[in-house]
Amino acid sequence: MEDSVRSEYFELLKFRSVGADPSHLRDCSDCAVWLKKWLEALGFEAELRMPDVKDGVAAPPIVFASRKGDEGRPVVLVYGHYDVQPVDPVADWNTPPFEPSEIDGRVYCRGAQDDKGQSFAFLCGLRDYLSSPEGAKAPAIKVVLEGQEESGSGALMSLAPSWRKDLAADVLAVCDTSAAAGLRPAIVAGLRGVSHFTVRLTGPNRDLHSGEYGGIAPNPAQAIAELVASLHNADGSIAVAGFRDGIEPPTEPERRAAEAGAMSEAAYADDIGCEPVGGQMGKTIVQRNSFEPTIEINGIHSGYGGPGSKTVIPSGAIAKISMRLVPGQSVRGAFEAVRAHLEDRVPRGMKLFVEDYNPGAGGFRLPLASPVFRLASSVLEDMDPRGPVFQWDGASIPVISVIREVSGAAPLIVGWGQTEDRIHSPNESYSLVQFAKAREWARRLFEAL
Amino acid sequence: MEDSVRSEYFELLKFRSVGADPSHLRDCSDCAVWLKKWLEALGFEAELRMPDVKDGVAAPPIVFASRKGDEGRPVVLVYGHYDVQPVDPVADWNTPPFEPSEIDGRVYCRGAQDDKGQSFAFLCGLRDYLSSPEGAKAPAIKVVLEGQEESGSGALMSLAPSWRKDLAADVLAVCDTSAAAGLRPAIVAGLRGVSHFTVRLTGPNRDLHSGEYGGIAPNPAQAIAELVASLHNADGSIAVAGFRDGIEPPTEPERRAAEAGAMSEAAYADDIGCEPVGGQMGKTIVQRNSFEPTIEINGIHSGYGGPGSKTVIPSGAIAKISMRLVPGQSVRGAFEAVRAHLEDRVPRGMKLFVEDYNPGAGGFRLPLASPVFRLASSVLEDMDPRGPVFQWDGASIPVISVIREVSGAAPLIVGWGQTEDRIHSPNESYSLVQFAKAREWARRLFEAL
Repeated sequence: MEDSVRSEYFELLKFRSVGADPSHLRDCSDCAVWLKKWLEALGFEAELRMPDVKDGVAAPPIVFASRKGDEGRPVVLVYGHYDVQPVDPVADWNTPPFEPSEIDGRVYCRGAQDDKGQSFAFLCGLRDYLSSPEGAKAPAIKVVLEGQEESGSGALMSLAPSWRKDLAADVLAVCDTSAAAGLRPAIVAGLRGVSHFTVRLTGPNRDLHSGEYGGIAPNPAQAIAELVASLHNADGSIAVAGFRDGIEPPTEPERRAAEAGAMSEAAYADDIGCEPVGGQMGKTIVQRNSFEPTIEINGIHSGYGGPGSKTVIPSGAIAKISMRLVPGQSVRGAFEAVRAHLEDRVPRGMKLFVEDYNPGAGGFRLPLASPVFRLASSVLEDMDPRGPVFQWDGASIPVISVIREVSGAAPLIVGWGQTEDRIHSPNESYSLVQFAKAREWARRLFEAL
Repeated sequence: MEDSVRSEYFELLKFRSVGADPSHLRDCSDCAVWLKKWLEALGFEAELRMPDVKDGVAAPPIVFASRKGDEGRPVVLVYGHYDVQPVDPVADWNTPPFEPSEIDGRVYCRGAQDDKGQSFAFLCGLRDYLSSPEGAKAPAIKVVLEGQEESGSGALMSLAPSWRKDLAADVLAVCDTSAAAGLRPAIVAGLRGVSHFTVRLTGPNRDLHSGEYGGIAPNPAQAIAELVASLHNADGSIAVAGFRDGIEPPTEPERRAAEAGAMSEAAYADDIGCEPVGGQMGKTIVQRNSFEPTIEINGIHSGYGGPGSKTVIPSGAIAKISMRLVPGQSVRGAFEAVRAHLEDRVPRGMKLFVEDYNPGAGGFRLPLASPVFRLASSVLEDMDPRGPVFQWDGASIPVISVIREVSGAAPLIVGWGQTEDRIHSPNESYSLVQFAKAREWARRLFEAL
């Protein structure tokens, strides 16, 4: 990597752009301004679009940029996000979370990969293309970089429908996913949707002495545990009535292609450090991650957790819950099914509140035999003789569902992540090799389109 | 209250003597030194006994003081503790937790009641007695003030057996409990025991992206919930096989006396702000709190709990659990029953660790028809025409079981707490009226003994 590109990359990573945390709003704005200037230097007309202030909290700005081009060629819309996940538990980081540290060919930093690293590498490839002779005949290009992807893309998803003309395009290029094992190219042919919400229980009006009140006061820590436990059956299947309504099972070609690109159980066990036994017993890892929905407890908190002991009955409890949704499931229907399940089981003495619901978007699968997939496949074969695998990613980019509908563009979701990148975890990283792949992919893609 | 006593009381409260937290060890030592000097001023020979350093962590010192007296009279051993509960959640305090604030006749401060306030008021009554004419014929008096009661009295409980001669006494006076409603005097005729421990689950080697790994990795937040939920049945009874082995039910006179002194369900609902539906359905509040054991979840923690969302599968989870034990239960047996229950249910893909076990002590009940209870009853009748009620307290003072055995003394446990004191909770307080009662009780007791 040239020093000039490295220093740009590191500048970008240093912005503490935690989009979900209002205290980092300024860091997000600074990051957006930096990206706007960077795109203007590439001949884009760029602007920051400020979402409306919601609940008194302003959201990170959206970078929108466009560049005229050869009218005979397909219009390309590039989507990425510059916001990153929170960094806690901070103590588990080996290097400062927002201090890019290059060690043995990997750059360690929150956002090194997801998605500052991947989207910036893609944009660097676009710059390579534009500054090459072929760049003279470049197609019209639009770029949208948002700051809320990790927390549901609220602003962009609500604004996009009013930007139909701005976003209109033929191809929607996204570099925010993973390649297959061994960095074999992968085309994402489907994504799960995601929604999340918070469950709060209130019981006693204060933390109580567990001796004076033990046997008298109901215990919210026990209650939240019972409520959370009720969401799944003993075999790991989801116990919520109506949650699975409408699910469209994958086609045989989709199932075969998905299993073909799958990592082995042993490889997963080695990666996560425990048996890969999440989800429903009796289904394959690919089925459970690509084609099945989940209800995942992202956090559960009640009472004392510090050193020593504190013999209290806590006054309340929370659980942070997210759902991954698959094609055919109704986003609202799945949420209402879970809410009804919880409201039917409010523990004795407790008040239940379901809060901060973010509907996100549903899952989708794309037709395997589309022109854009054929073109992408040949480009990726040129890059890697193994050719691409098709993946149905267990993760979600809810905003893609919306932009796809509004723009009319065919999604082309190709990313270069690897499991060792540890996105969303402490010590997130991205290798210079992966960066180069993403960059080369963008250049070749624009040449071929 | 005289200004001189008030300023002593406030000085004592300002020590941040959180005995369970090693970072407050120095505060505990300073508090112990203060108490030692205070007792020396009363003519006691006083010393600080330093527990052995355990696991590299020194424990708060134990204040031991003794004073010769009339050999014809019963030797009195006074027990109290100067350590206090942690103060979190700090945000819920209306005044600084360690800044005594006198508002409408109540002193707000951590430890204002439990037990700095109650034991200091008792010692002030002792001082009143010693400085009175009757004081000239004072009995021999011993005082033990420890700094670990809130976290299990580890040091004193291990050292007491080697202090048999020092602790030998006829009466063991303790002022660390509550009076009945309306400040009616109450004699504690029984206490539950308490043990506590921490359950830790480890799953993935890091927090994981809930999309990339959802359906693949097992979820410790879900797992700890299932484990905790398994401890109780739907009717609130304990689901752990063998946990109740050996329980000695109360006698009819004990049951009648306990129910007679009981607060109403409505009064409890008003106090705790929710229905008093803890414990097993179909049993009275007195049965559930005085004569039944509990397994209480003092805390449960896993994953994200901050603002916004963080869609992770957490890498681990903990639950802090305490048990209240009743006479007949084996302390070790009850713990082993719970451990076996947990180890039989280790969730798939998880490792289970049961840590920081503190056995504490078992529960006990004292004979109602003892000479010391008769004497105490007549003193309390002189103080309050309603006379005393007998209580079987749901709380625990594990060390009392040990000191009682070592000293050979008859426990006389009379305290002046009220539910509105909110001990162990934010905004703990003690009224000047309660302080005066505890002080008068001590003076009259020493006169009568």
